[in-house]
Amino acid sequence: MARVWDAFLTAQDKASLKTRPHQVWGFGERPALVLIDLYRWVFGDRRQPLLEAMKEWPGSCGEAAWDALPHLQRLLGASRAAGIPVVHVTGLHPLDSGVIGWAESPGRSRINTESDPAMAERNRRRFDIVDEVAPLPGEVVLRKSAPSGFFGTLLMAQLNALHVDAIILVGESTSGCVRASCVDGRAYRFKMTVVEECVFDRHQAPHAINLFDMHEKYADVLGVDEVVAHLGSLPRAQTAERIRSL
Amino acid sequence: MARVWDAFLTAQDKASLKTRPHQVWGFGERPALVLIDLYRWVFGDRRQPLLEAMKEWPGSCGEAAWDALPHLQRLLGASRAAGIPVVHVTGLHPLDSGVIGWAESPGRSRINTESDPAMAERNRRRFDIVDEVAPLPGEVVLRKSAPSGFFGTLLMAQLNALHVDAIILVGESTSGCVRASCVDGRAYRFKMTVVEECVFDRHQAPHAINLFDMHEKYADVLGVDEVVAHLGSLPRAQTAERIRSL
Amino acid sequence: MARVWDAFLTAQDKASLKTRPHQVWGFGERPALVLIDLYRWVFGDRRQPLLEAMKEWPGSCGEAAWDALPHLQRLLGASRAAGIPVVHVTGLHPLDSGVIGWAESPGRSRINTESDPAMAERNRRRFDIVDEVAPLPGEVVLRKSAPSGFFGTLLMAQLNALHVDAIILVGESTSGCVRASCVDGRAYRFKMTVVEECVFDRHQAPHAINLFDMHEKYADVLGVDEVVAHLGSLPRAQTAERIRSL
Amino acid sequence: MARVWDAFLTAQDKASLKTRPHQVWGFGERPALVLIDLYRWVFGDRRQPLLEAMKEWPGSCGEAAWDALPHLQRLLGASRAAGIPVVHVTGLHPLDSGVIGWAESPGRSRINTESDPAMAERNRRRFDIVDEVAPLPGEVVLRKSAPSGFFGTLLMAQLNALHVDAIILVGESTSGCVRASCVDGRAYRFKMTVVEECVFDRHQAPHAINLFDMHEKYADVLGVDEVVAHLGSLPRAQTAERIRSL
Repeated sequence: MARVWDAFLTAQDKASLKTRPHQVWGFGERPALVLIDLYRWVFGDRRQPLLEAMKEWPGSCGEAAWDALPHLQRLLGASRAAGIPVVHVTGLHPLDSGVIGWAESPGRSRINTESDPAMAERNRRRFDIVDEVAPLPGEVVLRKSAPSGFFGTLLMAQLNALHVDAIILVGESTSGCVRASCVDGRAYRFKMTVVEECVFDRHQAPHAINLFDMHEKYADVLGVDEVVAHLGSLPRAQTAERIRSL
Repeated sequence: MARVWDAFLTAQDKASLKTRPHQVWGFGERPALVLIDLYRWVFGDRRQPLLEAMKEWPGSCGEAAWDALPHLQRLLGASRAAGIPVVHVTGLHPLDSGVIGWAESPGRSRINTESDPAMAERNRRRFDIVDEVAPLPGEVVLRKSAPSGFFGTLLMAQLNALHVDAIILVGESTSGCVRASCVDGRAYRFKMTVVEECVFDRHQAPHAINLFDMHEKYADVLGVDEVVAHLGSLPRAQTAERIRSL
Repeated sequence: MARVWDAFLTAQDKASLKTRPHQVWGFGERPALVLIDLYRWVFGDRRQPLLEAMKEWPGSCGEAAWDALPHLQRLLGASRAAGIPVVHVTGLHPLDSGVIGWAESPGRSRINTESDPAMAERNRRRFDIVDEVAPLPGEVVLRKSAPSGFFGTLLMAQLNALHVDAIILVGESTSGCVRASCVDGRAYRFKMTVVEECVFDRHQAPHAINLFDMHEKYADVLGVDEVVAHLGSLPRAQTAERIRSL
Repeated sequence: MARVWDAFLTAQDKASLKTRPHQVWGFGERPALVLIDLYRWVFGDRRQPLLEAMKEWPGSCGEAAWDALPHLQRLLGASRAAGIPVVHVTGLHPLDSGVIGWAESPGRSRINTESDPAMAERNRRRFDIVDEVAPLPGEVVLRKSAPSGFFGTLLMAQLNALHVDAIILVGESTSGCVRASCVDGRAYRFKMTVVEECVFDRHQAPHAINLFDMHEKYADVLGVDEVVAHLGSLPRAQTAERIRSL
């Protein structure tokens, strides 16, 4: 099967990969859907080509974000229908916490969000999860201030409380917070599935190569059709019973 | 010097303690003040004896909480005057996060906050930091859902960002979240100071013995006079310079 | 039922406890036995009264350690018979890692293990798990350098890999590493059971009060008879099947 | 300046990068050198081309590993001369711990190290740090069982004990454990420097793109000349004094 990363690998990369079969992790028995950073800052308020969008929304991922949305909505719907836990992770706003952000440093210039009122308004909305995939009442929302959804959050505790053994991972960016969350999820020994159409990135080569890295080392990178089909096969009653009995 | 825990130790405890000198950690060079769980749920809205207070506020610490307040205000003022970092830690409300609380379990009955509107109103305010020691704009506020202020929060990252090497620890309860935060702080190798008049607990024996445990193993348990005097001796300019240069 | 901590609580403590029923956590479905710090440093090489033992073994817990041994052996046997995971946690020796110990600080004098060859020899053996409860081949052994068995170890990852949902916790000291591990275990949302006859401490009042604290906040503190009976009731085949399928 | 990742980026990637200046983190004031996974398993016993080497050493990184060695030796020498802390991180062997490895799963075939005695012997040596960069007595050696050097280890505690504020990161693989350690280091708010000639990977495209990712998001990816020059400029006496005073 052709994969998005094939075009970026070198001849030697491909030769070494041929020397052994690819390993598959498989789905677990009690999966959770974890959505990373589906917030306004990377979408902006409307679909625009990347370089246009970045003028107003410097963190934009351009059309890649909007292309992922229908797939995300489909997967989220299937997860809710299957009754598996859904965890939304977004940013902890410095204005709410006072915490020094992980991307801040004196040598690094920040976006000036004070002199430009429109930018200040966008900045205040930066970590709002977009309406299309907004949490339902009762769904868990965690706020982080590091690349990984596990770092400095209750994610591990919450998944353990729910007896989750596998994570279906989506969101952005492929080469940033999704990648970091995937590594930590595997470090904690969850079975990890990354849904290819449901992750996106501003940069094309890093998107492809980080999918490769995750598929080689930490996760199964699968298409949304396959994951939705799997969710449809889960025994719904058992799932509901499990959560009720916690 | 007589200590609050003396009355609770056994003769054998005292005999074994006499066989070696008590060890002192000392203050560090770049301390931060960390305040644990100074929220409405343990104060209630007014000073009342413990058993009275628990009728309306089941999590109350009674008069012990109110007795600590002037000492906490004095220490907080001295910390701000010294220019050291101040970090407030309080609870992450289940209504805001959906996270299953660390004290929840199907075998444990919860306070019914739905059938009683007054209790529901108090429950909504449970993690509001009380006005007397409220955060100033710019001070860090972290929200936790575990006993320790480090667990599932940005506390370690924030202290590392500020190059803190010592923690002055206050709040409640002595035998719960203060103790847990003290253990984690020492595990991370911070020099720990617990300020005796600025920690409190619903239960008297656990208050005393947890002070003993922390003093024996993890921290110096000091009086507020000594800590305030130390804060007054810190080189203010150096502190300000350090934070500016981050 | 009379409990060991009753004698240490004050009248007010007892009054406030009477205002609400004690909450019970219950056993989980997939428990693991976690043994904390059953190493030579707290036993010494033979049973001696505490003050005698401390002359050669300054970390000794005296006869309390040796009294716990038969109960520990019984519980360990029952756990192995039930086929539940067994995890041994002991110290990471500074001589093996170079790590600065959590109890070390310039203001704190250390045992001089260089000038006294016999002390140096005992120090080298300090973290050896005693023969009576030694790990079997294939049982997990983790090495820590902090009070909690979770801090800086693979304990959470290993328990998650095995789909454990409950911890049966034993070892020493009640007021130190057992307490710290219990708090972290609950923070991660495991159901915690502390086995009273299988934990011990140098100090009597802290032993009793830390049992109270754990029983009130984080765990069920149960007798070894009850825990062994529960282990005997577990469906052995299911347990074995689960581990095989990982 | 031409960078190794330029050849792998797409036209759109380059266009979006041009819209804003690259941000620089800068060196900290109290750096430590952290060496990741410089063990036998990726070197083998002699220099061989990748595809040859993988026949005997399935985890080999081929000539890329051996090419990095003189640079690693130079940097390690300069770090020791500067008196900065040096931390070696390697694998925690399953034979020593019983822990289920992060790369193990029932759907993934493992190297059969039992039927082939030569492979079994190589497997026993897999996490031995190679002689050329072996730890000196007193240098810290941490053992991990996850991609990141921080996960389940004492790394954060040890760096905090030494008041480190910056990490000079080297080792392998660029796209695996180096990348994971870099992300966690930044999450904890260390200033991160990755030394380009001192990291390596089996795969060429992932090596380049992971350097790009780290340089864009988490670290400065610098040449070994620049880092060695910086180490030479550090005030040695101050460093020594700091460690003595801990």
